[in-house]
Amino acid sequence: MLLTPIGAVLAISFVVYNILKVRGYSEGTNEVKAISAKIRRGANAFIKRQYTVVAWFFAVMLVVLCAMSFFGFLTWFVPFAFITGGFFSGLSGFVGMKVATMANSRTATASQSSLNKGLRVAFSAGSVMGFTVVGLGLLDLAVWYYLLHYVFKLGIADVTAAMLTFGMGASCMALFARVGGGVFTKAADVGADLVGKVEAGIPEDDPRNPAVIADNVGDNVGDVAGMGADLYESYVGSIVASCALGVAAFPQFNNTPGNPAVTIPMAMAGIGVIVTIIGSFLIRTKENATQKALLAALRRGTNFSSIAIAIAAFPLVWFMLGQEHIGIYGAILSGLVAGVGISFFTEYYTSDNYKPTRELADSTKTGSATLIIGGLSLGMLSTAIPLLLVCASILVSFFVSGGAGDAALGLYGIGISAVGMLSTLGLTLANDSYGPVADNAGGIAEMAKLDPEVRRRTDALDSLGNTTAAVGKGFAIGAGALTALALIAAYVDRIEALVADGLEKGLEWARNFDLNLSITSPTVLVGIFIGSMLPFLFTAMTMKSVGRAAQAIVVEVRRQFREITGLMEGKADADYEACVDLCTRSALREMILPTLLAIAAPIVSGLILGPNGVIGLLIGCTASGFMMAIMTANSGGAWDNAKKYIEAGNHGGKGSDSHKAAVVGDTVGDPLKDTCGPSIDILLKLSSMVSIVFAGLVLAFHLF
Amino acid sequence: MLLTPIGAVLAISFVVYNILKVRGYSEGTNEVKAISAKIRRGANAFIKRQYTVVAWFFAVMLVVLCAMSFFGFLTWFVPFAFITGGFFSGLSGFVGMKVATMANSRTATASQSSLNKGLRVAFSAGSVMGFTVVGLGLLDLAVWYYLLHYVFKLGIADVTAAMLTFGMGASCMALFARVGGGVFTKAADVGADLVGKVEAGIPEDDPRNPAVIADNVGDNVGDVAGMGADLYESYVGSIVASCALGVAAFPQFNNTPGNPAVTIPMAMAGIGVIVTIIGSFLIRTKENATQKALLAALRRGTNFSSIAIAIAAFPLVWFMLGQEHIGIYGAILSGLVAGVGISFFTEYYTSDNYKPTRELADSTKTGSATLIIGGLSLGMLSTAIPLLLVCASILVSFFVSGGAGDAALGLYGIGISAVGMLSTLGLTLANDSYGPVADNAGGIAEMAKLDPEVRRRTDALDSLGNTTAAVGKGFAIGAGALTALALIAAYVDRIEALVADGLEKGLEWARNFDLNLSITSPTVLVGIFIGSMLPFLFTAMTMKSVGRAAQAIVVEVRRQFREITGLMEGKADADYEACVDLCTRSALREMILPTLLAIAAPIVSGLILGPNGVIGLLIGCTASGFMMAIMTANSGGAWDNAKKYIEAGNHGGKGSDSHKAAVVGDTVGDPLKDTCGPSIDILLKLSSMVSIVFAGLVLAFHLF
Repeated sequence: MLLTPIGAVLAISFVVYNILKVRGYSEGTNEVKAISAKIRRGANAFIKRQYTVVAWFFAVMLVVLCAMSFFGFLTWFVPFAFITGGFFSGLSGFVGMKVATMANSRTATASQSSLNKGLRVAFSAGSVMGFTVVGLGLLDLAVWYYLLHYVFKLGIADVTAAMLTFGMGASCMALFARVGGGVFTKAADVGADLVGKVEAGIPEDDPRNPAVIADNVGDNVGDVAGMGADLYESYVGSIVASCALGVAAFPQFNNTPGNPAVTIPMAMAGIGVIVTIIGSFLIRTKENATQKALLAALRRGTNFSSIAIAIAAFPLVWFMLGQEHIGIYGAILSGLVAGVGISFFTEYYTSDNYKPTRELADSTKTGSATLIIGGLSLGMLSTAIPLLLVCASILVSFFVSGGAGDAALGLYGIGISAVGMLSTLGLTLANDSYGPVADNAGGIAEMAKLDPEVRRRTDALDSLGNTTAAVGKGFAIGAGALTALALIAAYVDRIEALVADGLEKGLEWARNFDLNLSITSPTVLVGIFIGSMLPFLFTAMTMKSVGRAAQAIVVEVRRQFREITGLMEGKADADYEACVDLCTRSALREMILPTLLAIAAPIVSGLILGPNGVIGLLIGCTASGFMMAIMTANSGGAWDNAKKYIEAGNHGGKGSDSHKAAVVGDTVGDPLKDTCGPSIDILLKLSSMVSIVFAGLVLAFHLF
Repeated sequence: MLLTPIGAVLAISFVVYNILKVRGYSEGTNEVKAISAKIRRGANAFIKRQYTVVAWFFAVMLVVLCAMSFFGFLTWFVPFAFITGGFFSGLSGFVGMKVATMANSRTATASQSSLNKGLRVAFSAGSVMGFTVVGLGLLDLAVWYYLLHYVFKLGIADVTAAMLTFGMGASCMALFARVGGGVFTKAADVGADLVGKVEAGIPEDDPRNPAVIADNVGDNVGDVAGMGADLYESYVGSIVASCALGVAAFPQFNNTPGNPAVTIPMAMAGIGVIVTIIGSFLIRTKENATQKALLAALRRGTNFSSIAIAIAAFPLVWFMLGQEHIGIYGAILSGLVAGVGISFFTEYYTSDNYKPTRELADSTKTGSATLIIGGLSLGMLSTAIPLLLVCASILVSFFVSGGAGDAALGLYGIGISAVGMLSTLGLTLANDSYGPVADNAGGIAEMAKLDPEVRRRTDALDSLGNTTAAVGKGFAIGAGALTALALIAAYVDRIEALVADGLEKGLEWARNFDLNLSITSPTVLVGIFIGSMLPFLFTAMTMKSVGRAAQAIVVEVRRQFREITGLMEGKADADYEACVDLCTRSALREMILPTLLAIAAPIVSGLILGPNGVIGLLIGCTASGFMMAIMTANSGGAWDNAKKYIEAGNHGGKGSDSHKAAVVGDTVGDPLKDTCGPSIDILLKLSSMVSIVFAGLVLAFHLF
């Protein structure tokens, strides 16, 4: 159990080390500094206003949860666990964003020397993000665990129940951050492109474009802060769900302090920190490395970590649970293998090194319509293999863990397989989040009119980042689906525990309730239907949000081009703040409704259909959400890379008709891959967490 | 029970009456006749080749089914019921197509006199289609029922089991017809538009475009023949599923000949024929009627039929099942109400009289990318209300029929609600299928250079047809989902019956099998996941098929423009046959794989996951398929109508930048709404039917 606090301390130390390392690099010329400062100011202003809105939401939820505690539906720890989850999730995003806005100018400056040096700055900033998430997650878990179990002497079942709420706080924060940040970044991006590139014919990141600073701010608040909050939630979600399932699977340990079934997920995470820190030191190349060599270096780090985890997990399971449960080690392996498989196929479908994206680029020859048809079908087709991998992982984890004899063991195995997949998160996330830093650095290089070679280098980094980001997304979605299933299983356990408790107290609702999970029962069936619909509705809402916000930006940018004399000639400055402010207001307005949907849907459905219907809803939502998440991520990624492939000189290169068609595809894909897809991933888990927290209420009051 | 053969005879008489009526109209000038003959030849040639391929498939399936009968997995009636189902489904499509190709020239000629006269010809042709489907369906049902029950003296359970196979034959044929016809029509349409409208800048249906005849052939083989086969399948599928559920719900009747629970669905259908024939005589307007008045006339017919059915069903249920089961009447009503509700919201989302499509048309101002984003989100958003209506209908049907006390009664109620929805099919389908006739008439008017006023009139008919077609699609999808659920329930009954039978015979597999439908069991869960994926994979395949076939057409059309001198100047004729032939070959090649997927997926999954997994698969497939079907239909319909709205002179009208963007949207939407969406509807039911037929095999051999 000591591994968890050790991991937390190590991760946080590594974060401090990397922050100092980033600060040590030169910030560059005054012009670079000035542009970076503008971006930083915009990002800070957004985060401040966003977190204020979110704080109000948390205050309201605190009152609601306290009221529920007062009426006996929850323990009094729950409201506070909820708050700390939200706080740490928000803090993860905040730290990542701070460092990213510090590193962008330094990456641009370092790229003046070499590609490799640029990568090192950007990657250090990415590591801050990755290890902040991991470190804060483990810290919070460890503190609550010790506090509840050893100080308040709570039974292990109550400890894990309270810790699940902690996950709900993190999920709420994550959804706000993802949707808000996602709307901000894509509204700015799409808006800037539509007027700048398409109408005015000026290049990307041209300082004459009034939305250019907003676009760069967006990278930091959406792709960095949003992603940080998001993955914090996945990470702790998978761990707390497995802990809760461990309680049900190993009742024999429930009275021994330090229940090994509960500590294994946390210990795995602790080991994960150690091996990924080592792995990140393996990522180094020669000074004049090619892009391919850089990618190979990144892969070396992640491969090392995965293999090291696979080795270290064996003695962990063997000594803590004993030889008869070594099958659970098989579950960990199956999670790792599925994760690697999903990553590979994500890369296959979205990288322009492979056939699908090249064929997609070909389809631009007959215009944007065939490109859109091709991209949608590519995305839908690409769901098949990841889905089958997850299904295989479910079956393997369940049966090797002993699920045939005791279903609780099998479900614990599924939870543990998600933990296995996410144990290398620190490094995956570092790989994933240096991309936006490089993207920003490119913007700064363009605006500060640095040597074009600098832009070429940051573009190389950015494109490398695109591949690693797509792979990271595949990983996150796969782990998200498994985590969601683990949470659903934890929900079923929770319902059973509450009913048993209610029967003991002789309550009427407990006597009337019948846990009937048969798939042909109408409430379960209707639950599955409604659940399948939620990701569609949610995607529609977030897409519409981006569309609305982008249209507002288009209007504003056109106004500035029209009204500010000398802007197009470069003689007058654009009013960048107006665009940043507009994006901020749009994002804050648009993030409310989708989040409320995610919270309200399981509660309202529960009050009508009862817990059986909720379980159907959660499973339907996980199934169709997984598909939508993969489809949106891969369609978007493939369109983006098809455009990059054409820009690299194929099919006529930049400015050709094919390129114009490809820009349309990229614009359609942007909100899909960066706003909708990643948010669905949170939706799956948030709806499960909400159901768990409101289980007592729904059990006591429901229509069918 | 006499109502069924009476209905069949009435429907077929009405078909003959309408055929004679259509033949009575003048065919027009020699030029019109010549063009119509070309279209007819192309359509006949395609249908001949398509049915030959399908005949081979049916021959193979016959051997497979006979082999299964030989080994005792099926009764010997099954293979022959399968064949007749396929035969009648194919015949429905064939008759409809024949009349449509006869009516197109006559509609064009009649439109020279007035809009109203044009409508009457087209609507008579549509009625032939609608009542052929209904008449042949009832005929086949009645013949098999009498034959099996009274001649071969089979028990009622065996009768309904054999009749379900009859549905599988119809579904197979329907899927071939829908996918093959859908690929043909959209490849020709998209291909003709991409080169003709976009590249060469010539108008739609211009005789210089080599793909123009293929485009018009496509309307007949896809939108008419494909739809006929498709709805034949929905119609008989819902009836046979309800009959099978009636056997399980009312075991007390199973030894009385003419089991009322089994005859009610057939009797309802018979009554439906009578009221819809009356309803179709109510559709008449004044000679100088406006488009609005025409729509009102069409609505009068359907409204009358729905209300008449709602009234007639009451005594039927009361006298046949007795007062204590009058709740089943509530199920019929809930199906009708849900159907009307879905139709209304389909119209709301796709008609340019309402806000969503107008807003979509607005989004063309910022280009095709925002239009695509807007259309996709509109489609996703529009799934919510239809889904909730279906869910409400499920819950109401189940509980008012007495499902709380006896689940079998509730499931019978769900089946009956689908029958209620489909009982007015003759008329709905007539409304739905006169559109393609009008579309063809417009093409002929353009090619034969008739007075532009004629084209304006056929366009008005076509646009009216767009709205009624969208409404019909909503109806079909809603009824399809309920039918699929009824089939799934029938599958569960079948598994239980087979296991009981196996236990009686002391077979080992029966002793080892455990019907565990708990949603948290891993096989059910994996089944749900795989099922949810199938509609995505299927949509991807059919979209890709259209894309590939359209690209081949593009290449061919470009070749003809390049190589045939004088073509663009109108001095030389295009080689229309080459395009028709190319579409035919593409369509035949592309229809194989999706059909095999639909048949193989439930069998292969069943052999791995067992019947529990299959049930999960079928439910997952129904849930996500329903969403995809609604989304594709409504996105496509809204894009089409947004284009029409702009062509009517808004946002700059034809030729403006907005119009160019709208053409992209329409091109993307075409395969979605006319190939993918309607095929998914068949996929849902075919996979259930296949599962039922292969239930014995899967029970005896499965891995988990």
